[in-house]
Amino acid sequence: MTATIIDGRATAQRLHARITARVAELAVSHSLVPGLAVILVGEDPASQVYVGNKTRQAQAAGIRHFDHRLPIGATTQELIDLVKALNAREDVHGILVQLPLPPGVDDSAVLAAIDPSKDADGFHAINVGRLSLGEPATVPCTPLGCLSLIRQVIPVMSGKRALVIGRSNIVGKPMAQLLLQNDCTVTIAHSRTRDLPQLCAESDILVAAIGRPRAIAGAWIRPGAVVIDVGINRIDDGSGKSRLVGDVDYDSAVLRAGAITPVPGGVGPMTIACLLLNTLNAAQRIRFGPTAEQLAP
Amino acid sequence: MTATIIDGRATAQRLHARITARVAELAVSHSLVPGLAVILVGEDPASQVYVGNKTRQAQAAGIRHFDHRLPIGATTQELIDLVKALNAREDVHGILVQLPLPPGVDDSAVLAAIDPSKDADGFHAINVGRLSLGEPATVPCTPLGCLSLIRQVIPVMSGKRALVIGRSNIVGKPMAQLLLQNDCTVTIAHSRTRDLPQLCAESDILVAAIGRPRAIAGAWIRPGAVVIDVGINRIDDGSGKSRLVGDVDYDSAVLRAGAITPVPGGVGPMTIACLLLNTLNAAQRIRFGPTAEQLAP
Repeated sequence: MTATIIDGRATAQRLHARITARVAELAVSHSLVPGLAVILVGEDPASQVYVGNKTRQAQAAGIRHFDHRLPIGATTQELIDLVKALNAREDVHGILVQLPLPPGVDDSAVLAAIDPSKDADGFHAINVGRLSLGEPATVPCTPLGCLSLIRQVIPVMSGKRALVIGRSNIVGKPMAQLLLQNDCTVTIAHSRTRDLPQLCAESDILVAAIGRPRAIAGAWIRPGAVVIDVGINRIDDGSGKSRLVGDVDYDSAVLRAGAITPVPGGVGPMTIACLLLNTLNAAQRIRFGPTAEQLAP
Repeated sequence: MTATIIDGRATAQRLHARITARVAELAVSHSLVPGLAVILVGEDPASQVYVGNKTRQAQAAGIRHFDHRLPIGATTQELIDLVKALNAREDVHGILVQLPLPPGVDDSAVLAAIDPSKDADGFHAINVGRLSLGEPATVPCTPLGCLSLIRQVIPVMSGKRALVIGRSNIVGKPMAQLLLQNDCTVTIAHSRTRDLPQLCAESDILVAAIGRPRAIAGAWIRPGAVVIDVGINRIDDGSGKSRLVGDVDYDSAVLRAGAITPVPGGVGPMTIACLLLNTLNAAQRIRFGPTAEQLAP
């Protein structure tokens, strides 16, 4: 048996097309153009690639984008002042601060300054709290995308055993909240977990978000399980070239899983599509109020 | 083998004594008297008993208390106005809205109106978010008390399997966050969970918070596990009298567990002590700033 390959790229393209259509409608019917402001500090090459992708895809969807690039020496106060200026702008509906920020900058203080209604990444404490409480919240993009991929193969998750490996604020913890909301029995594992192979063997849904190449062996996976691989790790392929691999050992996992996301082409494309979705939905809420229709992921 | 009985009453008394001593010090050295405002709507007898206990114990610790009893017909707006008035008072450092509120009142809106720095129950979305993010937060009283009881018997929880049964915003979810912060591998089970006996059998720490009398059988418990019973259920004892029992079948569980909390006399007393602790610590933070020394649970 070989697993169904969950095509994140195709799924993201479909979501992107729905976003583009809604953005076009809003422009015609309400002269509303969602706007996304991205703040990038310093010259980190990976961050520049991410921001470039975000900008390009926002443009392609008809979302206005505002790039703010600050030198590496930018202070916490300068960033807070910029965030506050963006909070006040009517043409900005989503604000994204590209992480990591340089050492010396207080990430929490900068994120806390973002107007929660414009918090495109869903990292503001109040959105984190609302997600946990089951109140309407902006949900972080990567777990939101993962949930959408899981739903493709498990429309009703109630009672499923779900294992989230990794407890970051960006992926692991919000992922666990979403699976819990979907009535899964959720386990969160991490670097101190002792019996990971056994936990994997018990899980119907496995989300790996640890950032270590091929750390999850195929043999650990429960036959038929749904495997979502959030990891994007660059490794040397042995011949001096580099390639991207996930946190799961794909070649062995694909033989046991019921469905699996590839790397690249799995979770990655969904993250950016969900960022645009969050920006679009924020624009609708800001313009039409808290009960505004929201585009589903 | 019989389990160690974790004496919540004695633990709460020790915490109460430490709180009383610190309150006395603050009065002498800084003329600071922590103040707790409790809002009770309607005539629910159980809520009246809880509020009466809270008031009495606050008094005994030297904490000033302000009772606000509103008729059952009080509106959301009236409650929000009262909360805002209490937010503005310098002599009030903790605000507690006794739940449940009557039907028709918007609980979320009332809780959201509380100044997060005076949120004695830790139910405000921003405190919930901060707890999840690992930032300084006011933590809900019952899970805070449970954690303190667990620590008595497992000082270092790293790598332990912990099972939280129940996913309420008041107990289950914050309990899971605290256990995760303490490096447990955490599973959250609930009404849709399919394999509860098996999950219990794998768990070193079991926190039961489902509100169903004796729903957790002793035979499910892993030998030697630490069992924290949050349930307080009134049942008919067969002879027409009523008594209180927990969510765990104590008589069988005590024969397998390594340590267990009784009902009554386990978690219950800790909840009120932690409410006073939260009020005291809020008073210190409000007066001396975010880096003020905090009394530990």
